[in-house]
Amino acid sequence: MPKPKKQSKRREEILQMSAKLFNEKGYKATSVKDIAAVAGIEAASLYNHIENKQEVLQVLLLAVAEKFNAAIDVISVRGIPPKRKLKQIIEAHLEIAFEHRNSVHLILHDWKELEAQQKDKFLRLRNDYQNKFQQIIEEGIEAGSLKAVNSTLQLQHILSSLRWIYNPELYKKPLEISLEEYKETVLNLLFSGIIKE
Amino acid sequence: MPKPKKQSKRREEILQMSAKLFNEKGYKATSVKDIAAVAGIEAASLYNHIENKQEVLQVLLLAVAEKFNAAIDVISVRGIPPKRKLKQIIEAHLEIAFEHRNSVHLILHDWKELEAQQKDKFLRLRNDYQNKFQQIIEEGIEAGSLKAVNSTLQLQHILSSLRWIYNPELYKKPLEISLEEYKETVLNLLFSGIIKE
Repeated sequence: MPKPKKQSKRREEILQMSAKLFNEKGYKATSVKDIAAVAGIEAASLYNHIENKQEVLQVLLLAVAEKFNAAIDVISVRGIPPKRKLKQIIEAHLEIAFEHRNSVHLILHDWKELEAQQKDKFLRLRNDYQNKFQQIIEEGIEAGSLKAVNSTLQLQHILSSLRWIYNPELYKKPLEISLEEYKETVLNLLFSGIIKE
Repeated sequence: MPKPKKQSKRREEILQMSAKLFNEKGYKATSVKDIAAVAGIEAASLYNHIENKQEVLQVLLLAVAEKFNAAIDVISVRGIPPKRKLKQIIEAHLEIAFEHRNSVHLILHDWKELEAQQKDKFLRLRNDYQNKFQQIIEEGIEAGSLKAVNSTLQLQHILSSLRWIYNPELYKKPLEISLEEYKETVLNLLFSGIIKE
């Protein structure tokens, strides 16, 4: 990985504009020239802020992956019932997805464009997140608060249903909904289902 | 669209092998030579069975999209309560996804590689499917059998949770589970949630 450039407000803006561009055009189809164009500067000046396109992808993707992992690392060791842990990690997941809409979609496909070492790092973070998530589900099954259903299937069911908010296609027609309403609704549907009793 | 080649058992095998290859390598990275290699014939002979790579993608993708649409067209006009319609379309969706694992994953990304006219056709089918699905949800809300929750959010919640089975990444480590057990579990989790009462 190239040496990270010094943080600055301008650099952060450029990173966010790049994330949007990657979303709209795809990482592969986006050039440094495209990034310079939306940033309103010459490509040559852009290199004062970023190393190259690959550095931008790495910084965006690993930052968001690390946020997911930091959340689950804290929650999974809390001395609270597994059902509350599950509620907290689902809420944290949705908060991160909502707040980082510009870059979280990169997690779906664009991680494949990472250079080998960074790709390994990303996949380790992702596996770690999924393992800790599944561990909470298994604790919940053990404690009798979650249905005794295949925990892998349950994990995929939950994570898939959280994933649509950062599917760029769906994101193009965003729901007019607040984060609070979104969290409440998704938790309600996941926890007690779509059917009205 | 090129004129479809005559159906034959050999052609069908080649289509299925192509779907698997597109899954493993991606459509773009797969060449006609690659298809010929797994089919165990010369590229020149392959053209007796298929027109080209684009024809293969079109046939595979539209066949699976049409199966989803045929199912919802029949179910959505049945004179049965909306909750039963919803159960039937979810089961039909899972059956199609399970039976056509080789090609259903193309629906996630590879449709973007279709030529313009076929892409339009595919997107019309997809919109039509989603609209009819949402219509059933709205009937259910109206009838008081489904929770009165934003129907777009509910649609995305349901479709996303059905989608993981044909995510190629997850499909690489398939669950050891029968179709019956899979349908029963997903319906249970979707309808009444993950929490044990």
